[in-house]
Amino acid sequence: MIVKAYGAHAADKPLEPIDIERRPAGEHDVQIAIAYCGVCHSDLHQVRSEWSGTLYPCVPGHEIVGHVTAVGNGVTRFKVGDTVGVGCMVDSCQHCSACDEGLEQYCENGFVGTYNGPTPDAPGHTFGGYSQSITVSEKFVLKINHPADQLAAVAPLLCAGITTYSPLRHWNVGPGKKVGIVGIGGLGHMGVKLAHAMGAHVVAFTTSESKRQDALDLGADEVIISRDPDQMAAHGGSFDFILNTVAASHDLDAFTTLLKRDGTMCLVGVPEHPHPSPSVGVLIFGRKSIAGSLIGGIAETQEMLDFCAEKGITADIEMIAMQDIETAYDRMQKSDVKYRFVIDSASLAAA
Amino acid sequence: MIVKAYGAHAADKPLEPIDIERRPAGEHDVQIAIAYCGVCHSDLHQVRSEWSGTLYPCVPGHEIVGHVTAVGNGVTRFKVGDTVGVGCMVDSCQHCSACDEGLEQYCENGFVGTYNGPTPDAPGHTFGGYSQSITVSEKFVLKINHPADQLAAVAPLLCAGITTYSPLRHWNVGPGKKVGIVGIGGLGHMGVKLAHAMGAHVVAFTTSESKRQDALDLGADEVIISRDPDQMAAHGGSFDFILNTVAASHDLDAFTTLLKRDGTMCLVGVPEHPHPSPSVGVLIFGRKSIAGSLIGGIAETQEMLDFCAEKGITADIEMIAMQDIETAYDRMQKSDVKYRFVIDSASLAAA
Repeated sequence: MIVKAYGAHAADKPLEPIDIERRPAGEHDVQIAIAYCGVCHSDLHQVRSEWSGTLYPCVPGHEIVGHVTAVGNGVTRFKVGDTVGVGCMVDSCQHCSACDEGLEQYCENGFVGTYNGPTPDAPGHTFGGYSQSITVSEKFVLKINHPADQLAAVAPLLCAGITTYSPLRHWNVGPGKKVGIVGIGGLGHMGVKLAHAMGAHVVAFTTSESKRQDALDLGADEVIISRDPDQMAAHGGSFDFILNTVAASHDLDAFTTLLKRDGTMCLVGVPEHPHPSPSVGVLIFGRKSIAGSLIGGIAETQEMLDFCAEKGITADIEMIAMQDIETAYDRMQKSDVKYRFVIDSASLAAA
Repeated sequence: MIVKAYGAHAADKPLEPIDIERRPAGEHDVQIAIAYCGVCHSDLHQVRSEWSGTLYPCVPGHEIVGHVTAVGNGVTRFKVGDTVGVGCMVDSCQHCSACDEGLEQYCENGFVGTYNGPTPDAPGHTFGGYSQSITVSEKFVLKINHPADQLAAVAPLLCAGITTYSPLRHWNVGPGKKVGIVGIGGLGHMGVKLAHAMGAHVVAFTTSESKRQDALDLGADEVIISRDPDQMAAHGGSFDFILNTVAASHDLDAFTTLLKRDGTMCLVGVPEHPHPSPSVGVLIFGRKSIAGSLIGGIAETQEMLDFCAEKGITADIEMIAMQDIETAYDRMQKSDVKYRFVIDSASLAAA
């Protein structure tokens, strides 16, 4: 099946319309007509080869929602017409200890990314959600129970949502816990909403006074302007957990000093240039930790989607046509979006 | 009471005999005739003012063992003649959440160090164990149940022992766990012995092939020469926990890459110059942590001493006279000691 997509032929070329082939639904496959696809910073990094190993043509997109158009004979959990999602992974080895524990994101043999991953399908690497349809193994397809009119705003949950939900759950965020969310962008705005819904006392850290009211509106109980040493010092040693969503190089000590004894700061972004080396003394004198976390497993992604449907949580989005992607990338790099661009995949028909 | 001690009058002056005053035993105090005192790197850092804030004269020493010579009326747990120890702390606030949990080392109001800490006693800062006696609040005195002939080798347990025991316990080292100990010196050699006694599979990391047999003799199941990339690569992703005792700046990524998913590397030394900034990607792609840990609380120090007495564990030491301290410092800086110098406090009588 040939479908319309948007992709780039080289790191220095813009995204443009291309036709790609999608396999028919195999025995355990679900074929999905894509309705919306979120625009993640990773898309930009990959398509411009800012990360190594980009294979061209490159069709990004891993915040996919849509409807089932066909299923294989062996598919039991989905039927034609179901509303479904696909996130950052479309396969994994299914037999390592990580996969056995439902933590496919840490697959010891490497999960297959929704784009730029190895696949037997032509041309040998996966194509993502900037396209009209996708065919995915049932195990990597998620059910979506949100109301139909929220579907576009559900798309970013598949990456930004699970990337923040998983560490918040892993480090037991909930009632009675004081939790910081550093950076109020695509990831951070989800972190604030989710931590609030989990019942924690949520403090949003932002460099920009202009985001104060926005952060409160998202569900933050307090907002700290991280450039203000007095505001920071007033919260010293008081946080159970800090989720740091900022991928740009910055001073981590400013935040680890705010952790309680035994507190953890979890990083979810890889900076292009290293952070200044964090103070070992700050960690030692409070038995504190700096950790990392990567998206989430399929079971946990389903749990997150169900949690969000129950709590009425979606991303705050700005809808774009596929043709506007380069402008969206430019604005995203300037943090000029509240808080996630989502592509209306219907626009591909005109491509 | 005036007693003999060794101390320095300035950062650039050698240690020399000085007379110091010790308070008589107050209601809750234990007066101790010091038999032996271990020599810790911290002593050297403090006395030479390599750490800020050294108060002179400075009498170091916080790995103290000896015998009770007097007790206050309110003392219930000790009597004259008991064999006891004193470690890195002689007081804390006793009313913060850390003290309430028996974690005096993280006292929110700052514990009182055995030397260089604030005290009402003249001259206003505490004097450590390079002296003939010390008077300490009962709460900070430990019982020692080792045989009398092991007393000198028990002294280093009070700092090197608890500094390694506490993180090994906190991160649940035991049977079925693969544990790395980085650096086979004063701290590391205790880490190997303790992790082995806890039932873990212990891997010693050293830069020096010459330490291989020594590490095996200490109880390591395997030894890795950390300068050999092939040996390191063979253990990728296999460690549950790594205790890193090396205070010199070094590449942390070489060890975090060896951690399993969800593994932790705990640092117990503060480097003079920062470590190269650790890779965030390595943490994210395995939900790994870098943590710190500081000595241990009083209850846990007692637990460690009892564990060591039961298992027959002491430090490997080289005994020196107090008069040899500067030579010992020089050798310690070259790692030329297996593995801890201990001062025979009887030598102070001739000072």
